Amino acid sequence: MNKLLIRGATILTMEGPEAIINAGEILIEDGWITHVGLPGSASGSFDMDEVIEADGQVAMPGFINCHTHAAMTLLRGYADDLPLMKWLSEKIWPFEAKMTGEDIYWGSMLACLEMIKSGTTCFGDMYDHMHEVARAVENSGMRAMLSRGMIGVLPTADKALADAEELARNWHGKADGRITVMLGPHAPYTCPPDYLDKVMNLAAKLKLGINIHVSETLAEVEEIKKRYGKTPVQHLDSLGLFKFPVLAAHCVHLDEQDMEILAQKAMGIAYNPQSNMKLASGIAPVARLLELGATVGIGTDGTASNNNLDMLEELRTGSYLQKVSTMNPEVLPAYRALQMATIDGALCMGLGDRVGLIKEGMRADIILLDATQPHMCPRHHLVANIAYAAGASDVRTVIIDGKVVMLDRVVLTIDEERVMYEVRERAARLAGQ
Amino acid sequence: MNKLLIRGATILTMEGPEAIINAGEILIEDGWITHVGLPGSASGSFDMDEVIEADGQVAMPGFINCHTHAAMTLLRGYADDLPLMKWLSEKIWPFEAKMTGEDIYWGSMLACLEMIKSGTTCFGDMYDHMHEVARAVENSGMRAMLSRGMIGVLPTADKALADAEELARNWHGKADGRITVMLGPHAPYTCPPDYLDKVMNLAAKLKLGINIHVSETLAEVEEIKKRYGKTPVQHLDSLGLFKFPVLAAHCVHLDEQDMEILAQKAMGIAYNPQSNMKLASGIAPVARLLELGATVGIGTDGTASNNNLDMLEELRTGSYLQKVSTMNPEVLPAYRALQMATIDGALCMGLGDRVGLIKEGMRADIILLDATQPHMCPRHHLVANIAYAAGASDVRTVIIDGKVVMLDRVVLTIDEERVMYEVRERAARLAGQ
Repeated sequence: MNKLLIRGATILTMEGPEAIINAGEILIEDGWITHVGLPGSASGSFDMDEVIEADGQVAMPGFINCHTHAAMTLLRGYADDLPLMKWLSEKIWPFEAKMTGEDIYWGSMLACLEMIKSGTTCFGDMYDHMHEVARAVENSGMRAMLSRGMIGVLPTADKALADAEELARNWHGKADGRITVMLGPHAPYTCPPDYLDKVMNLAAKLKLGINIHVSETLAEVEEIKKRYGKTPVQHLDSLGLFKFPVLAAHCVHLDEQDMEILAQKAMGIAYNPQSNMKLASGIAPVARLLELGATVGIGTDGTASNNNLDMLEELRTGSYLQKVSTMNPEVLPAYRALQMATIDGALCMGLGDRVGLIKEGMRADIILLDATQPHMCPRHHLVANIAYAAGASDVRTVIIDGKVVMLDRVVLTIDEERVMYEVRERAARLAGQ
Repeated sequence: MNKLLIRGATILTMEGPEAIINAGEILIEDGWITHVGLPGSASGSFDMDEVIEADGQVAMPGFINCHTHAAMTLLRGYADDLPLMKWLSEKIWPFEAKMTGEDIYWGSMLACLEMIKSGTTCFGDMYDHMHEVARAVENSGMRAMLSRGMIGVLPTADKALADAEELARNWHGKADGRITVMLGPHAPYTCPPDYLDKVMNLAAKLKLGINIHVSETLAEVEEIKKRYGKTPVQHLDSLGLFKFPVLAAHCVHLDEQDMEILAQKAMGIAYNPQSNMKLASGIAPVARLLELGATVGIGTDGTASNNNLDMLEELRTGSYLQKVSTMNPEVLPAYRALQMATIDGALCMGLGDRVGLIKEGMRADIILLDATQPHMCPRHHLVANIAYAAGASDVRTVIIDGKVVMLDRVVLTIDEERVMYEVRERAARLAGQ
């Protein structure tokens, strides 16, 4: 048995706003959290394989980015500040059309590297060549929920279904259980009802959940209403999609009935504030969704529309955006924003029994933050300091599935220089330089 | 004569979106930028007092935070997620009432430390005990525009005017010219017309500009309309305030006529997106103000409502917020946001002939950023990478007025541990712990 002890850290368990242990101890055995307690409370501390002395640091669950497209790091900064359709049709799609599986592997490795360095331990992804993304997840030590993006209106529609089934058979539950798979029909406007039927049949056969973009733009809502006489959410509901565990991304333009359906029937909603702001898609009514009891996690979306994978920045902007859009400074307070970025993100992807808390019986996805920098001083409230003042580089050490993947800012699982070299070369080729 | 050469950096001069010099050279003589050019172009490079080798780094003008209350670092995280009046009356004001001059000195030192570490070289401040803030600016090596906050409805109204005059006489143009002074009447709702008359008389006598909060909340606009039958901007205009160089902070709730007045008559507007979002004040119509030709800089506001002094985070959120609120992804593009955070901020404080560009004849306020981190890879567009992906800790070296105040993340002018110790102790005392 492998035993890892973290001691000395202030532990923010995320089991409640007051569930904070000063200078506590976390015992990890074979990747499981087996003890969380006061100083000196872990038994057998003489018998550890590894001890991390974390005085002055804060231990908390790793961030969970529940909606991104990792390989789009290749497109970071390639096209910004453009209208959506021009951005997609003249920039993003032509670039993506040239991408090979190897490009996607290296782009995903860069994303994993950036995520680890900013404290994200688990992400939800939807893209093409997903076995390459899976390889990147396996090699980097990350945890991920992977979906093969499927577009029903393209000639590749059936191949996408076959790819998705193959991805599930090869990777669901693999990489020591760090990888799970959901089916990824892209969106109601790109997947007609007969195609969504095929997706649901496959989901039933493989016992998988469904990861889909919903109501991201006003144009989408209008198009779906024109075609089906219903909002996207009500259209999907009438097709029976919510009989499956559904993670619905974006959900920007919703009416009250949409929100009730999502609150009652969706497994989770991925709120992507920075992408929705940067693309001028709109502001998701998250405060109201939370009132109705919805489970909402936070996603960065891809780096073509963000342009980084920094979850601290994302949860902060996500909180502030809800306050200003509701004219209510009390909504999405600091602790609630941190919950969304940890345990609620896990729940959104069906991983809530596994990660998102520092608690006995969970897998050990834990980050250690340096809480001694000037921007974290003084410490009237630790939770507010983290949610509203911390920066990505405050993350010093990252543990995923009980393994130390970054120690004092040195990433142990990835050759940083090689990854950045590959991405620079490939990005230049893809941009046609 | 002291000669400092920076060589090897990619120079983002901020003289135009394409005005970027690869591996260029910047020569600084006695604090003045005397040469900016191609590799090997600086004369007499054998004769330098100091050479900074900056290969792989980006040199750009330091960030200019044109609205903050530095000493409020003491209140960081003390009270969050509360309605404005409850936040002020039950938390902020009672805490501030206990502050001594020494508290304000140490709180300001912490702010200077945090600003230097995140690449800010100049800030605009309004608070009490401003000679203590001036001492912190002098000792830290920062550049600042300082205003004694003046509230006309308090018994201290006349003392505030006397303090402001004393501040101007003692500190305007001091600290090697790094400190300038403006008069700081707090806001139209706290300064009645007769008091603003006194302020304008003093401004005329001392030849100083005026720094004032305007139209921050809807409640303020309604109150001023009730009292004077005019919007705050039109009320101030009718009093003749805009005959002076005015920096107007916030400007959230404006009608079209207000915007035309500000565009034509104000020296500058300080846009504080994160504070306005967090306090749920509203969204300043910055895109429209820019269309009308207004000069708009960016401010963090104090850390009680932010909760950090990170200008990269602020300019990014400021850009994204304008895109989403106008439903137009083309407004406030990356370069424009960087301009607002540099040269436009300087213009807002009457310092546009002195700092904000890397250009011959300007004082040398320059930062060097590490552009080789994973979140800055690949480099399709350097400007987008900085505006939309960089983090505060990417700032490695900071030069203010030609002096190196941080070298490779070591702050040379401030004892970090001492400052944080003082702030921790004082914050605990003030919070009554």
